[in-house]
Amino acid sequence: MVKREIVRKIRKILKTGKSSELKSFLESLNHSDTARCVTDLSEKDREKLFSMLLPVDAASVLRDLPDSQAADVIEEMNPGKAADIVEEMPSADRVDVLHDMSENAADAILDQMEPEEAADARNLLKYPENSAGGIMLTEFFSYATDKTVQYVLDDLKNNRDKYKQFIVQYIYVTSPAGKLEGVLKVRDLVMEHSNAGLKDIMLKNPISVNVNDGVEKLISVFSEHNFIGLPVVDSEKKLLGIILRYRLQEAVGELTSESFLKASGIVGGEEFRSMRLSRRVFRRLSWLSINVFLNVIAASVIALHQDTISAAVVLAVFLPIISDMSGCSGKQAVAVSIRELTIGLISPADMFMVFLKEFAVAAINGIVLGLLLASVAIMWKGNMYLGLIVGAALALNTMLAAVLGGLLPLMLRKMKMDPALASGPILTTITDMCGFFFVLTFASWAINYIK
Amino acid sequence: MVKREIVRKIRKILKTGKSSELKSFLESLNHSDTARCVTDLSEKDREKLFSMLLPVDAASVLRDLPDSQAADVIEEMNPGKAADIVEEMPSADRVDVLHDMSENAADAILDQMEPEEAADARNLLKYPENSAGGIMLTEFFSYATDKTVQYVLDDLKNNRDKYKQFIVQYIYVTSPAGKLEGVLKVRDLVMEHSNAGLKDIMLKNPISVNVNDGVEKLISVFSEHNFIGLPVVDSEKKLLGIILRYRLQEAVGELTSESFLKASGIVGGEEFRSMRLSRRVFRRLSWLSINVFLNVIAASVIALHQDTISAAVVLAVFLPIISDMSGCSGKQAVAVSIRELTIGLISPADMFMVFLKEFAVAAINGIVLGLLLASVAIMWKGNMYLGLIVGAALALNTMLAAVLGGLLPLMLRKMKMDPALASGPILTTITDMCGFFFVLTFASWAINYIK
Repeated sequence: MVKREIVRKIRKILKTGKSSELKSFLESLNHSDTARCVTDLSEKDREKLFSMLLPVDAASVLRDLPDSQAADVIEEMNPGKAADIVEEMPSADRVDVLHDMSENAADAILDQMEPEEAADARNLLKYPENSAGGIMLTEFFSYATDKTVQYVLDDLKNNRDKYKQFIVQYIYVTSPAGKLEGVLKVRDLVMEHSNAGLKDIMLKNPISVNVNDGVEKLISVFSEHNFIGLPVVDSEKKLLGIILRYRLQEAVGELTSESFLKASGIVGGEEFRSMRLSRRVFRRLSWLSINVFLNVIAASVIALHQDTISAAVVLAVFLPIISDMSGCSGKQAVAVSIRELTIGLISPADMFMVFLKEFAVAAINGIVLGLLLASVAIMWKGNMYLGLIVGAALALNTMLAAVLGGLLPLMLRKMKMDPALASGPILTTITDMCGFFFVLTFASWAINYIK
Repeated sequence: MVKREIVRKIRKILKTGKSSELKSFLESLNHSDTARCVTDLSEKDREKLFSMLLPVDAASVLRDLPDSQAADVIEEMNPGKAADIVEEMPSADRVDVLHDMSENAADAILDQMEPEEAADARNLLKYPENSAGGIMLTEFFSYATDKTVQYVLDDLKNNRDKYKQFIVQYIYVTSPAGKLEGVLKVRDLVMEHSNAGLKDIMLKNPISVNVNDGVEKLISVFSEHNFIGLPVVDSEKKLLGIILRYRLQEAVGELTSESFLKASGIVGGEEFRSMRLSRRVFRRLSWLSINVFLNVIAASVIALHQDTISAAVVLAVFLPIISDMSGCSGKQAVAVSIRELTIGLISPADMFMVFLKEFAVAAINGIVLGLLLASVAIMWKGNMYLGLIVGAALALNTMLAAVLGGLLPLMLRKMKMDPALASGPILTTITDMCGFFFVLTFASWAINYIK
């Protein structure tokens, strides 16, 4: 069944209001179809859909959506209904989704949840989303140092159902106070004698990460060690959870996609077309309206030189070209810096290196583009001076744009600002102003030759 | 030791030429420091560094770098030296790195490798990088249906060393011809009787993916099932490898970061500042020089209306604003579409939905931005007509830009072109032309009121 038909069928069931039919139809879909259909439904239909499902079924539909999309759908519900659904989600998914909501919305939902589950969730929500605490899973196997292999095997056998969702790769060994003392691989259990003490066969002082470590630190630890998972401890070495490599990769992917969307002017770093219109408009517009004013400021440079343009109207043709081209050169450099910052390859301390590397590219590109534009101007108007003016302005401004574009993200990061969202607008405002200034100033010097 | 000191120290050792000192110093660094330092070194120093190390040590340094950076460093070497190093890498890393090179460079290296290893690598290289075959690991456990639990346990015990790098989560059960028949979890081995036959305790007809499945399909399968890994088979159900969830997440992250860099005008979707200058210049410039010509085409609309500008020079102030603002609105929509395409949430078939969703945002944003710019124009010049002209032009053009920005990536995908690289330039050329056309045409109608 193609998507359009699925959506049509869902709309039809929503009209009949038959919950059981809805549930069995949704269960017949594969999960990516569900996600795509929820995107297609109107806000009203979506609300109806979730109100018709039992919380446990609604939770299972929501798990098929990307976290931030699920968060958005839940925020549309009333907190009581939302709490019922959130309680049905596995703990890691639950925290991911609550993280992606506004704090107020998350609080309202937590207030309606069972006190114990809410306390657990609040505890995990304390950790930033991109820290070890924000990524860790709290389902892990740990046994006291005085236990034997047989004890572990028996426990695993006796609690099969309880452990069904656990990812069993490592067995952690802890002191009575919960301090991490050692680690075993599951395969060790089958390779050792069943009466061996965990204390004797465990790997002592295993590598662990601190619950407050950030994503960059985690990437570095995981790239250093070929583990599929690592234990997470607090400053007293108490075992709190495990981080799996795929959860880390997921977090890195989210960071990159956030940077991409922010750099493209999506405030908050996430937009799905299933989000409600008011939120999409607000996020995009808040960035655009700042840009209008920055553009007006940049264009004021032109306003100050209107007499030069009056004398040589042809300049008006070249102003948008210089503005756009410098913007392009700058944004290339911004993107490379943001990417290298995100994966921890550079830091604000690398400004001088970035300056040198960008300047080399900028100088060559500036000269080539300047020559290109100069040729176009000369061929079109047969005026060497015009070519010289626009070519030199573009060359200079390209160099400025690429160097500034490379450095801005580092400066913003140093000032604890978000490089992805702010670099673009600041960059284009400065390069527009300088570009207009170069063209119009050079032109005013040679105004008698280009009239 | 801070990075600058590390780099200084490496340069010093490179001058002395003492290989053993270099090796032991590099080993004392943590892996992310190594990656950052290699980025900092000049091309010449980097060449020297790798020529001083034994292939096995060079391979271990390269494994600390992101794949495409490692590929770039290896491409700088002569193929014989490169082959020696590549042979020392684990098979999955080796293929990742060869994938990230030009085909010629990879071929030259493969020609110098041991015939058998080269044949293996060539075999894996056949699969596109973003397919199951490109992501799978070929290290997995498989046993024939007639074996017992004890046989597996013995084999695991006897070949501990050989299996050291294996990720043991599942045990696959195959027919004599290698056809996938069933799967066991490692925990099943410890929970079942040792004389049980694999055939009797295995899960039959396990979920598998086809070696040619693309990333979007894989995301959907992994989101549907909570597995840490899945078997990869060919069309005859022969077991070829396994895909781990973290490798898939890695591939998705790479796709997203490629989209980001391409959308910012980095041809090839990858640039590290450690790449050699000529390549960085070539990639950026090839995109920029096309943009110069597209800009000239767009600006030709202004050239055709120079008399209108002569009559009202103030218009020259507003042209770059309209061009830049429409570009911003369009790029927001492009980014959202590229992101939704990358994670498989929309497909080219969704054009109508995207049109409706974008139009709703575009209409509101267009009107708000139009009113904003109109107010600025009226406050500045006290001329209602000027306000009306620039406001209406921006409003119309914002709507056009957002709708076109949302649809372009889908159209390009449908035409099998790369949405990330091509959307931006096509979008801004069209929106620039239309924006200039709107302003200058409206102005020509009311030219007597704005002089």
